[in-house]
Amino acid sequence: MSDQKDTILVINSGSSSLKFMLFKMSTETMVVKGLVERIGTPQANLVYQRPGFDKLEQPIQADDHGQALDKVCATLCDPGVGVLKSLSEVDAVGHRVLHCGEYYSDSVAVDENVKKVIRDCFELGPLHNPANLQGILACEKALPGVMNVAVIDTAFHQTMPKYAYLYALPKKFYDEYKIRKYGFHGTSHKFVTYATAEYLGKPKDELNAVICHLGNGSSISAIKNGKVLDTSMGLTPLAGLVMGTRCGDLDPAVVLTMARKGYSIDEIDKIMNKQSGLLAINGVNSSDMRDTEAAAKAGNPDAQNALDMFAHRIAFYIGGYFTLVGGPDAIVFTGGIGENSVNSRKIICERLKALGVELDEERNQQRGKACVISSDSSKVKCIVMPTNEELMIARDTYRIFQGK
Amino acid sequence: MSDQKDTILVINSGSSSLKFMLFKMSTETMVVKGLVERIGTPQANLVYQRPGFDKLEQPIQADDHGQALDKVCATLCDPGVGVLKSLSEVDAVGHRVLHCGEYYSDSVAVDENVKKVIRDCFELGPLHNPANLQGILACEKALPGVMNVAVIDTAFHQTMPKYAYLYALPKKFYDEYKIRKYGFHGTSHKFVTYATAEYLGKPKDELNAVICHLGNGSSISAIKNGKVLDTSMGLTPLAGLVMGTRCGDLDPAVVLTMARKGYSIDEIDKIMNKQSGLLAINGVNSSDMRDTEAAAKAGNPDAQNALDMFAHRIAFYIGGYFTLVGGPDAIVFTGGIGENSVNSRKIICERLKALGVELDEERNQQRGKACVISSDSSKVKCIVMPTNEELMIARDTYRIFQGK
Repeated sequence: MSDQKDTILVINSGSSSLKFMLFKMSTETMVVKGLVERIGTPQANLVYQRPGFDKLEQPIQADDHGQALDKVCATLCDPGVGVLKSLSEVDAVGHRVLHCGEYYSDSVAVDENVKKVIRDCFELGPLHNPANLQGILACEKALPGVMNVAVIDTAFHQTMPKYAYLYALPKKFYDEYKIRKYGFHGTSHKFVTYATAEYLGKPKDELNAVICHLGNGSSISAIKNGKVLDTSMGLTPLAGLVMGTRCGDLDPAVVLTMARKGYSIDEIDKIMNKQSGLLAINGVNSSDMRDTEAAAKAGNPDAQNALDMFAHRIAFYIGGYFTLVGGPDAIVFTGGIGENSVNSRKIICERLKALGVELDEERNQQRGKACVISSDSSKVKCIVMPTNEELMIARDTYRIFQGK
Repeated sequence: MSDQKDTILVINSGSSSLKFMLFKMSTETMVVKGLVERIGTPQANLVYQRPGFDKLEQPIQADDHGQALDKVCATLCDPGVGVLKSLSEVDAVGHRVLHCGEYYSDSVAVDENVKKVIRDCFELGPLHNPANLQGILACEKALPGVMNVAVIDTAFHQTMPKYAYLYALPKKFYDEYKIRKYGFHGTSHKFVTYATAEYLGKPKDELNAVICHLGNGSSISAIKNGKVLDTSMGLTPLAGLVMGTRCGDLDPAVVLTMARKGYSIDEIDKIMNKQSGLLAINGVNSSDMRDTEAAAKAGNPDAQNALDMFAHRIAFYIGGYFTLVGGPDAIVFTGGIGENSVNSRKIICERLKALGVELDEERNQQRGKACVISSDSSKVKCIVMPTNEELMIARDTYRIFQGK
């Protein structure tokens, strides 16, 4: 690889997985990507893919994230399939970190204090933060002296004003327990906000938009002058839209009623996060939008109702955020569903006529690429903008590595 | 009083109070109103007021709702201050009933089955339904042979489609436990919907509107063709807007977090219903909008933030429902705050510019009467429409008494 100091490794470390991508940032080229899955089990497996080459898969020994990363590093430098002569070519590592509370509103170079913050926020991100920290520690060991950058999923939402992030609860719940709206998918909302500004030829700090990140997890953000004014997820990623397995918004008293029916707090947590959403309501026991759409098309009334619930809730949020941002430059669809589900965009946009939205059915057939899907006479532009969280992580890491 | 069979007694029976109003329905005249308060305590008290006369107050013995009603009936027929020659002049009694689940979508003449339904719904309306039933039983005893009509607060919302009322939870929670969105303030939303249609000269089944009932309890309804399409309250009156003492919407996971911090379900219930909302956040320990406004005006930053939270949330809902109804004929303000708080309407409407709302500052000075408050060039009409739940109860009761 070149001598230019622009090689960025991106790490997304989950509880039993470690995803990676390697970028050359002067050209923003993705050189290789892959993952180790089932870490800590005898079935651990490395997947490794260079663009234009066959995907490689091999069972490996990976008792922990450290072993997994060592194997990734060895493969990156492998004389046969590798892309680096030596690990010293990696200039910086960017880590996806779920939750840093109110500490950071931008990505940050990792030092002892940042690690302490990530640890202090274990309670706010109990599933992700410990795994994220393990990824950082593994990199510190495997790549000594290389800068690690934390790219935090809650950071972009830290611009929300107090009147948007505070819940109307007694103050001690915010002061003592830090209970407030944080918002998630921040790295995606940031990437798509900036990409939309560029696509529309607008300075990013002048962009007003409603960004709909629709995937297995879904959230909508109200972007005012390039910053988050409000967002649909809350203290956790449970709030807001109907998702693959999450219920999204409901009367908080529903939780109280379920508890009084004898469900434990942990059971309710599991039900609402893992057994709800499309999975619970579409009648075909799948959390996948494609299965829901196929079943609805085949006449399943539960699946049809699930689509209606999904679209009704999203249209409600779009209308609300359209209003709060004072009229957006664009309504933007991104994420797996937002980029690819022609039908979802159709049934959402059909509900937005009062906002002046007019969908162009033909343009809406496009999938997975940046495009306008509204008609020329639509009063508000609707666009598809593919997200790229890994590239956003690489960009932030490269910027901070360069001292910018 | 006249021989015309149009004398309707309206009863609103609470846990320790019994409010009443007597109407002559051929002219829709309110003849007398009053209440017994502190039922079941040595401080029980009767308040009795005829329009144009001084308010009367006297301590009474009222160990239960039956005794309270007997005293009301005696006073209604009192040769000095009474308005009836005999109780037999009462043609029908209308009762406010909080919750009848999915059983009724209209008011209904009380029979054994209706009483059973009210009883079956004790769990859905634990504070109100038992008291409502006591009021009915007391009337059956005190006014034998007189028709009682249940005017149910959830009935008007029963038109909501399934995709609006269902939560995205596993089906058993709806099938077995009846957990769904019901909506409240239905009698008020119905009155205001019909009054708005009349005010605008539109057939009520063609009216699209966003009805903002803003008081100590607050809810917003999306009215499509004169029927409720969606509403902000849910399984209980806790959901939706920032209210006097209720928190309204929040991430359901907040309840889980509070429980894990050691709060019991009953404590969380009490905190969210009685100790949250304006009371918790305005810095002046009052649930009253007037105190909040005064404190904000005097420079209290918490009070200012409380107003911003209140208006931000309402503008979000208005934008969402504006969209879902396909563009309303009017955005309507009602309830104590909606009818009287000039400032609240101002800070809400200022956030609605993207919808084409233009407030007329001078028109907005009006209080407590039906009026337009938007400018002539506003793209959507904003109006104030005083609610009158008691008159709505009397109207429904009179209609059903007449067999219509």
